[in-house]
Amino acid sequence: MEYLDQDVSNCSVGRAIGLVGDSWVLLVLREVTRGVRRFSDIQEHLGVSRSVLTDRLNGLVTQGLLEQRAYREPGARSRSEYVLTEKGRDLYPLITALRQWGDKYLADPEGPSLLTTHHDCGAPVRVRLVCDEGHVLASSDEVDRRPGPSARPRPTASATV
Amino acid sequence: MEYLDQDVSNCSVGRAIGLVGDSWVLLVLREVTRGVRRFSDIQEHLGVSRSVLTDRLNGLVTQGLLEQRAYREPGARSRSEYVLTEKGRDLYPLITALRQWGDKYLADPEGPSLLTTHHDCGAPVRVRLVCDEGHVLASSDEVDRRPGPSARPRPTASATV
Repeated sequence: MEYLDQDVSNCSVGRAIGLVGDSWVLLVLREVTRGVRRFSDIQEHLGVSRSVLTDRLNGLVTQGLLEQRAYREPGARSRSEYVLTEKGRDLYPLITALRQWGDKYLADPEGPSLLTTHHDCGAPVRVRLVCDEGHVLASSDEVDRRPGPSARPRPTASATV
Repeated sequence: MEYLDQDVSNCSVGRAIGLVGDSWVLLVLREVTRGVRRFSDIQEHLGVSRSVLTDRLNGLVTQGLLEQRAYREPGARSRSEYVLTEKGRDLYPLITALRQWGDKYLADPEGPSLLTTHHDCGAPVRVRLVCDEGHVLASSDEVDRRPGPSARPRPTASATV
């Protein structure tokens, strides 16, 4: 079965896009990944409305990417902060892929606004395409695709009429 | 300067999100990456309206991620197909990061609908966090962040009033 003949409704990429294919969702994940956890901090840093931020945070909590925790500063009422779950932390390669591409094509002429380095050795961190045999791939030209266990044919055009 | 005190308007992640942080854009990039190049094929496979698809394709061409080419089948009028530029092809790690995360958390119980393997050896392909010294990182806990060459302080709250 060719890819074009497959039903894409259960494609993993599509399902992932359904959860994180939104600017504010991705920006919120960036902020929390970089340690900005409090509602008011995220709101000010992103310049986002309270209602949009509330909507995206609630969605991320419901989907299990963020966990809401209470904190209280002396003399103030209890407030919320947000931390990544394992499911949310597993999106770090995605955030890194965005940064790497942005650093290459969209950074200011003098260079990126943030440097991300390996804590142990100080070298820049990136994502690389690799296979489970340890080979590094230069591009998508080096991959083969075939239907997986949950592949199914897409409804034909005539069936949808 | 702490991250929270930085102006994020020139953040590479944010700029990348500005171009590709949209469901239809990402779905179109997935399709073209997998060899679906013709307007009508993309439209049918995604179940997207002509106007939305036209809008996203035009944006991707304008931003230099796709190139529009004419093709003509015997007896038919000339039509358009879309191919990735180098800038578009460089998003393959991003697509792969989405697939990897989707395969882990969102695939049907029997497994993913598509298998992506290394052409040379047949092993599954994924993205990995690595540093330029060749170390593999397990998570974002192993990274340090510091302001880069284009870092600038964010406007203070009082300055924006």
